[in-house]
Amino acid sequence: MMRGLTFYKRFSRDFHDNPSLVKLLVVFTVSGGGVVAYSESKSYGLNVVHASEADSKKKRVVVLGTGWAGTSFLKNLKNSEYDVQVISPRNYFAFTPLLPSVTCGTVEARSVVEPVRKLIRKKTLDIHYWEAECFKIDAQNKKVYCRSSQDTNLSGEEECVVDYDYLVIAIGARVNTFNTPGVEENCHFLKEVEDAQKIRRTVIDCFERASLPTLSDEERKRILQFVIVGGGPTGVEFAAELHDFVSEDIVKLYPQVKDLVKITLLEAGEHILNMFDKRITAFAEEKFQRDGIDLKTGSMVVKVSDKEISTKERSGEMSSMPYGMVVWSTGIATRPVIMDFMKQIGQTNRRVLATDEWLRVEGCDSVYALGDCATINQRKVMEDIAAIFSKADKDNSGTLTVKELQEVIDNICQRYPQVELYLKNKQMHNIVDLLKESKGDVAKESIELDIEEFKKALSQVDSQMKSLPATAQVAAQQGSYLADCFNRMEECEKNPEGPLRFRGEGRHRFRPFRYKHFGQFAPLGGEQTAAQLPGDWVSIGHSSQWLWYSVYASKQVSWRTRVLVVSDWTKRFIFGRDSSSI
Amino acid sequence: MMRGLTFYKRFSRDFHDNPSLVKLLVVFTVSGGGVVAYSESKSYGLNVVHASEADSKKKRVVVLGTGWAGTSFLKNLKNSEYDVQVISPRNYFAFTPLLPSVTCGTVEARSVVEPVRKLIRKKTLDIHYWEAECFKIDAQNKKVYCRSSQDTNLSGEEECVVDYDYLVIAIGARVNTFNTPGVEENCHFLKEVEDAQKIRRTVIDCFERASLPTLSDEERKRILQFVIVGGGPTGVEFAAELHDFVSEDIVKLYPQVKDLVKITLLEAGEHILNMFDKRITAFAEEKFQRDGIDLKTGSMVVKVSDKEISTKERSGEMSSMPYGMVVWSTGIATRPVIMDFMKQIGQTNRRVLATDEWLRVEGCDSVYALGDCATINQRKVMEDIAAIFSKADKDNSGTLTVKELQEVIDNICQRYPQVELYLKNKQMHNIVDLLKESKGDVAKESIELDIEEFKKALSQVDSQMKSLPATAQVAAQQGSYLADCFNRMEECEKNPEGPLRFRGEGRHRFRPFRYKHFGQFAPLGGEQTAAQLPGDWVSIGHSSQWLWYSVYASKQVSWRTRVLVVSDWTKRFIFGRDSSSI
Repeated sequence: MMRGLTFYKRFSRDFHDNPSLVKLLVVFTVSGGGVVAYSESKSYGLNVVHASEADSKKKRVVVLGTGWAGTSFLKNLKNSEYDVQVISPRNYFAFTPLLPSVTCGTVEARSVVEPVRKLIRKKTLDIHYWEAECFKIDAQNKKVYCRSSQDTNLSGEEECVVDYDYLVIAIGARVNTFNTPGVEENCHFLKEVEDAQKIRRTVIDCFERASLPTLSDEERKRILQFVIVGGGPTGVEFAAELHDFVSEDIVKLYPQVKDLVKITLLEAGEHILNMFDKRITAFAEEKFQRDGIDLKTGSMVVKVSDKEISTKERSGEMSSMPYGMVVWSTGIATRPVIMDFMKQIGQTNRRVLATDEWLRVEGCDSVYALGDCATINQRKVMEDIAAIFSKADKDNSGTLTVKELQEVIDNICQRYPQVELYLKNKQMHNIVDLLKESKGDVAKESIELDIEEFKKALSQVDSQMKSLPATAQVAAQQGSYLADCFNRMEECEKNPEGPLRFRGEGRHRFRPFRYKHFGQFAPLGGEQTAAQLPGDWVSIGHSSQWLWYSVYASKQVSWRTRVLVVSDWTKRFIFGRDSSSI
Repeated sequence: MMRGLTFYKRFSRDFHDNPSLVKLLVVFTVSGGGVVAYSESKSYGLNVVHASEADSKKKRVVVLGTGWAGTSFLKNLKNSEYDVQVISPRNYFAFTPLLPSVTCGTVEARSVVEPVRKLIRKKTLDIHYWEAECFKIDAQNKKVYCRSSQDTNLSGEEECVVDYDYLVIAIGARVNTFNTPGVEENCHFLKEVEDAQKIRRTVIDCFERASLPTLSDEERKRILQFVIVGGGPTGVEFAAELHDFVSEDIVKLYPQVKDLVKITLLEAGEHILNMFDKRITAFAEEKFQRDGIDLKTGSMVVKVSDKEISTKERSGEMSSMPYGMVVWSTGIATRPVIMDFMKQIGQTNRRVLATDEWLRVEGCDSVYALGDCATINQRKVMEDIAAIFSKADKDNSGTLTVKELQEVIDNICQRYPQVELYLKNKQMHNIVDLLKESKGDVAKESIELDIEEFKKALSQVDSQMKSLPATAQVAAQQGSYLADCFNRMEECEKNPEGPLRFRGEGRHRFRPFRYKHFGQFAPLGGEQTAAQLPGDWVSIGHSSQWLWYSVYASKQVSWRTRVLVVSDWTKRFIFGRDSSSI
């Protein structure tokens, strides 16, 4: 037994101390993300919230939030010249795209979360985490106000104030109820891990309740009426998951009520999945019809009472239906703390916090915002057209030659990505084609434009501006972009790498943030997934389901969650989903 | 590779050297399997609570509870001549011995539960489950009153009445607070899966809270003071788990507060684990001391306020200490519905529901009780001594010969197991030795006893009566015993297989329930477990930890939970425990 024990001890110690061993042993083809440098976090003066003396040289970066944007920022930060304080009410990062799978037990809640402390301790940096919620940002005095997010009777000072040199706001958004009466009280949401767990319990509760012998058939039917509001990817995926759960697992355990189940999906627009290609929408709608999922488009929810949900159809007709559970998944809205912050900094007439292309909050120094809590307020070419013209017109001749323009065109495209998009959509190779179009068919070298002609040539490009979708992909890319900026802050101070400042002198310090779309999935249940990949490549069916599996496995934030998620899928194939009401 | 091979060799040799180990492993592997007969449950008339017409010939068995006793009964029931209705507020069976492992994430909550519906659907029988709680038993009219246990706003008739022909009560017990003030409000318990999940969240909450920068050191220390009340197997195992969690996982993630953690175990008696062998107790106490777990014996809790726990020492001295979390694990008490039932049937001066050796509730027809909610009221030999004598004295001579006695001795031993125990303890081979002792050294054949001498000879045997411990092992054996009785109800009606009725005519229908002790484990942390096996065989250390692993894996109620539990253990070895506060 002795040697067995020794082996076992060494075995487990090796695995604890040597994460790379795990990586070697656990065979996966997908990328993990960087060499892991292990180091114990340094202890820090606990009572000190202001930068302590030892750290006084280091600039303090306060990061609010541990979602996609915040975690991606922390994972990619490599510069040890900062004292980083992470503040979030959730001490874990959650892989939110798998939340619909958690609602029905296809994947376990714990398999999609990773403690923030684990993510930050793998670095040689000075990063500290506090489980607290920011309730006020004071940009004037560079302070944030936080309080512990625990609903506990443990006392102690509840609130604290934290100074910052740089503030990174990545607190995400809240659910948008459009102020529909009764939604807060009666609907389930699907934004947090707790929401998914609650939905899972409620689904089982509905089935248990409907199986009680004392109910009328009408009551039974009501309890098994599941309504999903919102035909976006989350709502559609949840509807599909629920349908699979019912048809694959529930029917065997609750045979006497299986025929009473009804799943209804309400969408205010004309089609579900409207951000996807039409082929995907059509396939999804057809599949749902085959599956018996009741799809009601053009149906807007106006009220949710404790047993009934009322809708207004396109025709103006009002109707009501009884329900057992409603899941509300219609989009996002700004959190109160951000609304308050926007008032302070004069962004009063906007609905979302605006940043520039470098993710800096407009009208506010040293504050960055990324992820769902902010949008990039892209600069319009037409607003800067005079500055661009005069910068490009080096000889101050009042006209631009093709040569002059070609010298600044890269800077224009970098600063105003819509120009590139516009050219691409028009199938033009470069800006000369655009000028040609406006000037008529003349020799390239002889084209010269004055300011009015230049304006006219570019008058349509701003139509290509689109705000980025509120997805995990955008947030993660923003986080890693910002971390990269922080990593090279001093370096780029000396050697700016950004485009020319058209309305100022010199160059911008960094290149502006540019989103790269890798495609999007819409799981439709029954081991079928729709995938829309860059270049309008659409794939629907079982093959994309496997693509979905491999992408989602590879995108996991740690090897632990990767192994857990894959083993959850395997488990589900073998044993089905668990229906215990815990 | 080398290491793995060596380990495997050593492992298999250990099994050769240790035949009992092999036996156990084989027994459990076999018992785990079993042929799975799959069959869809028949649908039944949902509105009918009284036996429906189709089932009117079938006797209705109502089973209350889905714990160890109830589930074991259901798993072993094979007779399709019953209409079985299972009523329990929990739609799953929980493998409770692993609850301490769930508190710290060594094993996940879902890995130790299995839906009742899955367990019952694997049978060709008529078994139906309702998620409801029984709040009243009406033995006079053979009815139980139930209500839905969901705390939901779904309405419908909340209560229902269920008729029964046979009632099987297996609802377990509640936690015993000994009416200590403040316990209900401020302490955690460890009886249900939800309790374990709550403890897990609270432990992490304490660490997160203690890491906040605004607290004083004193407050931090208070929050990280974990107190366990009760030195039984559950309390000890939880203390050990918590210690492992802190020393293996928490220290890495919360380095700045790790030195403030203190674990205190309070036990009112003189020693912890007092139902175990003294060697085990001594080993555990020593190990806890080495581990830095503060063990206070002879310390009785008298009050728990929201931040302080007050104790009274043996010396009469009172003391108080601040705490962050208290786990109360001191024993069990009778549930209110059983108390009420006991009043009805005249068991007013008892603290626990009493049954006879056939698990039939005393003073009540067709009602059985098993598991923690009841105790077997063993019949004393001395109470029946006259009846036994007259039954044995076939020739009515007024004296018993050895021959006469030998004819009924098997029946006596079966009916009064204490006789056998007494002989065994006295190292006597059979009752004749006992008679010899009382009559002095005479020839065996010539022994004759009158009633007084017979009484004298047996006067000490009742001292061997012991009530059974409130363990999963007892409950499971009772469940399978009772199922066996129900399976052969008619068969044994015709051919009774039990012992002679000494105070009546004929034989008892069944053999009385006899508990077979397979041993007990006390995991002590750090991969060490104490095991007390039958025949006072004591094993302590890493080898018993492996025994523990194999026994607990094999005892799982389904292959699903078996695979999950084993993969949880593996996961823990590789990745450590998860500290996300969900």
